[in-house]
This record gives sequence, C-alpha cells and structure tokens, in this order.
Amino acid sequence: MKHFTHIADVGRRGAYELIERAQYLKRDGLGERFSDRLLAMLFFNPSLRTRASFEAAMVRGGGNALVFDVGKGLWPLETVDGTVMNGDKSEHIREAAPVLGRYADALAVRSFAKLEDHDVDHADKLMRSFREFAGVPVVNMESAREHPCQGLADLLTLRETFGDLRGLPVTLTWAPHIKPLPRAVPNSFLLTAVALGCKVSVAYPPGFALHEGVLAEARKLSFAGGGHFRVTHDQQAALEGAAAVYAKSWGPKSEADVTAFPDWSITPEHLRTASGDAFFMHCLPVRRNLVAADAVLNSEPKKFLDQAENRMHVQAAVLDWLWNG
Amino acid sequence: MKHFTHIADVGRRGAYELIERAQYLKRDGLGERFSDRLLAMLFFNPSLRTRASFEAAMVRGGGNALVFDVGKGLWPLETVDGTVMNGDKSEHIREAAPVLGRYADALAVRSFAKLEDHDVDHADKLMRSFREFAGVPVVNMESAREHPCQGLADLLTLRETFGDLRGLPVTLTWAPHIKPLPRAVPNSFLLTAVALGCKVSVAYPPGFALHEGVLAEARKLSFAGGGHFRVTHDQQAALEGAAAVYAKSWGPKSEADVTAFPDWSITPEHLRTASGDAFFMHCLPVRRNLVAADAVLNSEPKKFLDQAENRMHVQAAVLDWLWNG
Amino acid sequence: MKHFTHIADVGRRGAYELIERAQYLKRDGLGERFSDRLLAMLFFNPSLRTRASFEAAMVRGGGNALVFDVGKGLWPLETVDGTVMNGDKSEHIREAAPVLGRYADALAVRSFAKLEDHDVDHADKLMRSFREFAGVPVVNMESAREHPCQGLADLLTLRETFGDLRGLPVTLTWAPHIKPLPRAVPNSFLLTAVALGCKVSVAYPPGFALHEGVLAEARKLSFAGGGHFRVTHDQQAALEGAAAVYAKSWGPKSEADVTAFPDWSITPEHLRTASGDAFFMHCLPVRRNLVAADAVLNSEPKKFLDQAENRMHVQAAVLDWLWNG
Repeated sequence: MKHFTHIADVGRRGAYELIERAQYLKRDGLGERFSDRLLAMLFFNPSLRTRASFEAAMVRGGGNALVFDVGKGLWPLETVDGTVMNGDKSEHIREAAPVLGRYADALAVRSFAKLEDHDVDHADKLMRSFREFAGVPVVNMESAREHPCQGLADLLTLRETFGDLRGLPVTLTWAPHIKPLPRAVPNSFLLTAVALGCKVSVAYPPGFALHEGVLAEARKLSFAGGGHFRVTHDQQAALEGAAAVYAKSWGPKSEADVTAFPDWSITPEHLRTASGDAFFMHCLPVRRNLVAADAVLNSEPKKFLDQAENRMHVQAAVLDWLWNG
Repeated sequence: MKHFTHIADVGRRGAYELIERAQYLKRDGLGERFSDRLLAMLFFNPSLRTRASFEAAMVRGGGNALVFDVGKGLWPLETVDGTVMNGDKSEHIREAAPVLGRYADALAVRSFAKLEDHDVDHADKLMRSFREFAGVPVVNMESAREHPCQGLADLLTLRETFGDLRGLPVTLTWAPHIKPLPRAVPNSFLLTAVALGCKVSVAYPPGFALHEGVLAEARKLSFAGGGHFRVTHDQQAALEGAAAVYAKSWGPKSEADVTAFPDWSITPEHLRTASGDAFFMHCLPVRRNLVAADAVLNSEPKKFLDQAENRMHVQAAVLDWLWNG
Repeated sequence: MKHFTHIADVGRRGAYELIERAQYLKRDGLGERFSDRLLAMLFFNPSLRTRASFEAAMVRGGGNALVFDVGKGLWPLETVDGTVMNGDKSEHIREAAPVLGRYADALAVRSFAKLEDHDVDHADKLMRSFREFAGVPVVNMESAREHPCQGLADLLTLRETFGDLRGLPVTLTWAPHIKPLPRAVPNSFLLTAVALGCKVSVAYPPGFALHEGVLAEARKLSFAGGGHFRVTHDQQAALEGAAAVYAKSWGPKSEADVTAFPDWSITPEHLRTASGDAFFMHCLPVRRNLVAADAVLNSEPKKFLDQAENRMHVQAAVLDWLWNG
C-alpha cells in the first residue's frame, strides 16, 4: 500500500514527479478526480493552512473530507502496546486507525514533535503506527520528523519562479521565536530541496543543529540528485548569493533559549546580503518583527503566499498519486 | 471587488434586489449555482443559525464550506500593524486573510462587538481588515457594527407577510437580558427596514441608545427611500399600531445593567397594544421569560422561525450576487 | 413523520428490513440516493465512529452533513418548559430544534445518559423533545436509553457471519472499566438481538441490572420474534455455548464501583469457555487489558472492526428508509 508520510516514500524522482503533477493540476484544475473519495483528517495539533488546503483540494476535486480534532470531538488515543488502559486514553490506535480506514479512503494525520527527546521525535512513531494500522493510505500533515507536503509546496514555489532547480542557491536560516518549535519544516525543506538539485546553505546558531539522521538522509539525496548542502553558524556567509531565503525558527528541545539571537531576524538588509532580488520564504504562520520585519513581509513578491497556495496543489497531486496512480 | 459586510455595500436598491433574489431562490431552489464554489467561514464567536444557514446554502447550491473556529482549531490572529508579535497571537491577519483567499472563493467572518468603546465597535476594524487583505469577496456573519444578513432575513420575512413594505409600521424594542449584548442586530434591522421603506419606532430605556453613526446612516437611508424612524423611551407609545414587534436586548457597554427594566419583556399584552394581529420577531437565540414570555413564543405565527429560515435564503442570494453577478 | 430514535420505531420486522437494506447498500453502494439531502448532527457528547460513520454515509450517497458540538461552537440548550432563562443556557430546544429542521432534512442527536436517576435516563426526554419539535425526522446517535444504530450494526455483523439468526446463542457480558458508563449500548444490543431471534445470555455482577423497562420491552420482542433472553450473575454459565461474546461495561449509576470485578475482563479463556470459535464483540472504543485482554483484541476475526464499519451501512439504510421510503 502506498503512503506519503516521508520524502523517502517517493524518493528524488517521485518528489520531482509530484511537483510536475502539481503544476499540471494547478493549471488545468482537478475535475472530478476525487469524486467518491473521502479523506479523514486527524489533528493532534491545530492548523489553518493545512486543514484548509487539504479540504479545499478534496472538495475542488469533487470529493469530501472529515476533520477530527483529537482531544476535542475525538477521544485521546493510546499508542503504546501492552498498556493497561485505565488512564485518560479511552481508545488505542490499533482500533482507531483501522476503523477510520473502514470509512475513509485515506487518513491524513498531524502530530507535532514533543521536543523532549531528539531520537523519539526522529523515530516518528505515531505516524508509523498509523501506516501500520490504518489499512488505507496515510498522508503526513506534519509529523514529529517531517512535513513533506510543505517541502513539496516550497519547491513548487521555487520551480514556478526559477524553472530548472539544479544548482539553485537557496538559504535555510534559523530565526528567533518566543518558544522552541519543531524541526519538521526545516527538515522537509532541506530534504526536498537537495532532492530536487538545489544548493542549500543551512545556517543556525550553535546548539540548534538538525538531527544527524536528517543530515545523513540529505547527504544521500544530494549525491543521488546533484543537490548539495552545507551547514554553518555564520548567517551572513550562508546568505551570500542566495536566490531565496527561507527563514524558520526551530528549537532542538523544549528548554532551548530561542530569544538569544535577535540579530538572526530577517530584515531587508539580510535579503540584500543574499542577492539583488532574493525573496523571503516562510511556511507561515510567521510572527512579524520577530522572525522577519514588517518591511520584509510587506514587500513584493510575497512568495510565502504562493507557498501557502501551493500546499493545496501539491496535496492534490499527492492524493491523486495515492488514489489514481 | 464586491463585498457584503455592511448595508452600505449595496444601498437601498441593492438591499431590495437581494430580497427579491432571495424570494426567487427560495421558491425555485439553488440548482448548481455554487458548484465549484468554496466558502471559508471564520468564527471568532460561536454560532448556530449563522453557521448552519451558510453551510446549508452552500451545499444546497452544490458548493462547499470550510468552518474555522478561531482560537480552537485556528491560531489567534493579530490585527494591529507594526506589532512585535511575541505574545499569544501567532499569525497576522495580513497573512491569514490572503492565504484563506487563495483556497476559498469568499471569506465569511463573524466577530462580535467588544462593548468596551462605542466608537471602536462602530469602526468595525476587523471586518474592514478582512476586506482589505482577503483578495476575495468578504461576507459579514455579524461584526461589531452590523449583521446585514440578519437584516435582510428580517425584511424578507416582513415582505413575505405584507408584500409592499412602504410605510409599514414596525417596532424595534429593547428587551431585558442577563448581560449586555452587541447592537449589530438592532443596527441592521433599523438600517434595512428604513432602506426598504418601513416606518420604524425604536424604543429603549434611557442609556441604551444606538450609535449616532448608525442613526445618521438610517436617516440618510430614510430620506432616500421613503422610510422613516423615530426614537423614544416610551415602549408603549412605540408599540401602538405596529404590524410587527421586533424585540432584542442590547447593552451599550459591558457595564450596563440590562436587568433593570423587567417590564420591557414582551408579553401577549405588549402585542395587543401593538395591533390586533401584530406578531413577535426575534433573531434568536431568545431567552424565554426574559426577553419574551412563553405565551408569546408558543403562539402562531412563529415568524421568528421564518426569520431563521430566511437567513439561508438571503445568504444564498448574497453569495449568488457576489459570485454570479 | 418517521423517526429512528428507538427500536420501537421500527419493531421486529422493521429492524429485520433495515438490516437487509444495509446488506444491499453495502454490496451495491449508495449511488446518489442522498443527493440534495442535508443531515444536521448535534453532539452533546464526543464521538469518533458515530460522527465519521454518519458523515461517510451521507457523502458517499452524494449528500452532506453539518456537525455541531453543543457547548463548543453551539450555545447550550434549555430543555425544561416554563423556565426563566437567566442562566447559562441561551436557547431553548423549542427554538433550536425547529430552526435546524428548517435548514436540514433530518437531525441526528447524541446525548448520553447522566447516570443520576434510572428512570430519568430511561424516559429519554431530550431525544423525545427533538422528535416533538424538529419538524423533520430525528435519528438517535446514542441517547440516554438506546443506541439503536449500534444495535443494528451489531446484528448486521452477526447476520453476515451466521446468516439466519434465529436461535443463535450469544452472550452479552458486563465488563470492568474505570468509571460507570451508560447502558444504551447493552440495551440496544439486547433489544435488537432478541428482536432478530437470537438467544441472548445477559451476565452482570450484582448491582448492575439493566432497567426493568428495557427488560420488559426485550421480553415482548422475544415473544413476538422467537428470540429469548435470560439474565444471570454467573458469567461462566452465560458464556457456555455462545457463538459470540459481546462485552461492554456499564454502571447503573455514577457512584457504582466498576473496578470491583476484574475477573469479568475478557481473556482468551473466556472465549474458549464460550465455544471453539466464539468471537469477541465490542462497540468501541475499548480499553485494552481492562475490558478485554490484548490477546483477545489482537486475534482474528476482529469482528469489532466489522461492527464499526457496519455502523456506516446501517445508518445509510436508516436514512434511506427515512427519506426515500
């Protein structure tokens, strides 16, 4: 059974084909390709873009989506095997996942990293459990480890702007925040960008490294696809020559001080350091004057709006690939 | 770009045409006029009728609606420009509105008056910000200042009952409650009724005036359309001769004592004071034996149920006008 | 007007025909039989299966469903007549029900037993009020007294397995839990099973009796349909010879100690006591190693997944019967 929970599900070539398919669907519309299709969406964490873009993709293709907020309308789920379930969790994923799979044609799941243990987050157990038990294709709407639909949307945005992505210099830079955030977005941008052939400069202050497992996977994708990445603590050096500057805050763990490097916040000067017409990228939501200055966010081209819109198109492509081959 | 956030968007003639269109759609059905249309609905405050009637209008016309409860499934939104966003609001309306506009064909927004400052409520900043940033038509599902779809539904109900509305005597009376409520409903009933030619008697106890800006707008609409209104603190005088009695509680500000005038609660005697067959109107939800007596609410004709149903029909007309001309 | 809130709405023959209709719809699909149909669903209590299975049935038949969580997006409802509504409830069911009935083609309602007073729960006032006021067909998604769609799904599962149900020996056994649960599920299983001709052995520890009114109704249905049931406190005796073992926890009232009988938790030994190939049934969610052991839940045939899937099919049959005759 096909799933789309990690970039490894499709590899370098599959990622390329999904972006091509998304471009085609964006141009020609979805027709009725999701008629009779039902997507069940489970949110362990809140969402605006993700929910709206998946629902929009489904209904614009003639299908339907069910939305469940775990812990609100939905019982909390147990995921550990062998537990005596006498606590607050009244249902096990071993039942909840296959039951939803009986009603829907695919499950989409969002569950953020807990930021307590690098390796636990990286192992992505909840997402892998849904794959194991759902009985239908599972789609990742951001897991502890990856946010692969965001990665595809980011790269579709670059492809629409630049065409051929091979050798394109882009910067992925850490940014300040009020609290440590998961690394699924930077992970997926890095992995997808190198898979598509970009040259990625990753910059972050000491102590904010990405997980070694992600870097290893990025290295493998680089070799295969001609992409390249380097890692540095020097934001200025990472910015030089970049065609696009992707800013994103992340913390490695919940106790990290993400307010200690205010100069990493993106200003028009940072973009000028990059290149004459470098543009700002972000997955949104973005905290203004913390992650990036008003002057950056108010300037054209607002590619971050294209990134958001492209979520809908790449997700339509993913669902079309899962269901229609 | 067309919007429907205030009665001023359509004026006297436009309001009349929307009611005519609603009558037509109510009789003949919606067909597939909303096929391929997606409405995104944002609720900053809870809703029964509004949500159900908009969703029903969309799906009965072959379209779809997305529902977002701000602060639950959706991140809280910042609306002030220039803020350093290091508080509880993680997204600015400058991003949230256009992103939803990329997915949906219109945004519908509900955000009640805060009742802290008359002029702030009257300025209706949030609704105007959505108009500015959404990139698609915006519909008002009750804002700080107006509830124009309710106003249209109220007048459609009167038109179904009386036909020609010119010169029709109706009373809009304040009623007791447990807490001060926004004035969007009385504002919109007054504005729409005078625009359609009714003679409106507005009655409220001292201290519960409507905003002068609304009265000024009502005066202008009166002159243009033949309607008329007067304001009084004498509920009995306001009731005399009325064909319909619209009761609604409102407070001017959050500290007002809305329990101090229990006699303003509508009883069968109040209706008899009005006219032999005067009927009771209300936007619902209505607190029984506080706003109006059981004997009023249990009597035919329950026009308040027609008012609620007509929400669906006028909203279908509004969306049809926004999208299909 | 037809409703489906209690097994008494259809009787023995009607229950049989709904299960036959569900089998037919499960095999042949729903086509467009719900096109132009809108189901409004009101949840006073949370739900996974019920919501997903009703929504799935609606959209797979070409229709739509609206979901309202009372107390969250929806105002709390008053149900007592004559009240001065100056408390936390801002709308009376006398208005809320008919208003939703103006928008939707049927109302589905979930509201659990309060477990404070046997007779109050048994009287099922909220569900009966919706029937009285909605103006459209009402469907029970689990009320204080019954969960008739679950009962139909359970019996469809037995019918798929065994064909003719007349004389089929099945056991309904109480199980431990962390807190007292409503009796709607055991009530409906018992009533539907005897109506369809099963021989039901009901076992529970002293103090956990079902309501006498349900037993009386089960007795009547037994006489009419050839079914039979007996009640015992001896779980072992009840299990012997059973083709299927339906375990479910219930408390009679909120102060009952439902942890006092750990041996009633179902293990593989219990199933072997029943018969060589007896299988485990449960309505889900099930607390593992409390209601039943992992070894029971991890074994094939996982008929409880079929029970869950069959919710969708029997509900499609119920809606089809209500709307299309």
